[in-house]
Amino acid sequence: MEKLEHIGIAVKNLDESNKLFARLLGKPHYKIEEVASEGVRTSFFDAGNVKIELLEATNPNSPIAKFIEKRGEGIHHLAFEVANVKESVRAYAENGFTLLNETPKAGADNKQIAFMHPKSTNGVLVEMCEEVKS
Amino acid sequence: MEKLEHIGIAVKNLDESNKLFARLLGKPHYKIEEVASEGVRTSFFDAGNVKIELLEATNPNSPIAKFIEKRGEGIHHLAFEVANVKESVRAYAENGFTLLNETPKAGADNKQIAFMHPKSTNGVLVEMCEEVKS
Repeated sequence: MEKLEHIGIAVKNLDESNKLFARLLGKPHYKIEEVASEGVRTSFFDAGNVKIELLEATNPNSPIAKFIEKRGEGIHHLAFEVANVKESVRAYAENGFTLLNETPKAGADNKQIAFMHPKSTNGVLVEMCEEVKS
Repeated sequence: MEKLEHIGIAVKNLDESNKLFARLLGKPHYKIEEVASEGVRTSFFDAGNVKIELLEATNPNSPIAKFIEKRGEGIHHLAFEVANVKESVRAYAENGFTLLNETPKAGADNKQIAFMHPKSTNGVLVEMCEEVKS
């Protein structure tokens, strides 16, 4: 992993949480983006050295809706930047980690992403992300 | 908040998890430290732009033991660096956040720390930390 790219936090109401995190971090979110394929609306904050991504479900089948139903609002995932997500998926699977996505998929913020199952990472949902070069 | 200083992750067995996170992050932990007053043994990893702190309970009354009993292993807290933790406690309390520590206390890694209650921060246990100048 190159560095921690962002922390994903599941919230019930993005507009309310945008206000809360602006007070907490001392600055407002800098963008909002919907990822229809994942059933989420997201906002991004610059926390200095990392991004904070708030995630609101846009439908009841969204992974974020299910997460909140089970565990309540809170930290959902840690996303680490990798140089080549396809290659990282292969390498981590070979190294004994359980991947949730064998093939990377499109995420927010112009990224190709893949998740590892928390059961192989001490209960932490780990995302690997690669910025798509335009 | 100045920046994200570290992410605290609750684990059952520090030695096992040190091996796991070394495989995940591609480098070993760089130190181990016990904080007897908090009932934890911790290890630190350099994840590039932030530290990862693994936390193992050293007694059944440790907050980490209780966390794992209730929620299982996983992300325990986000710690943000502040210039003056005493002043930040005052300012965030005045701004409507619920503090768990009215007076900062000694944490690992040469820090004075204070926590906010997750109920006022979208389910996220937020630590504020100030490095103690020697």
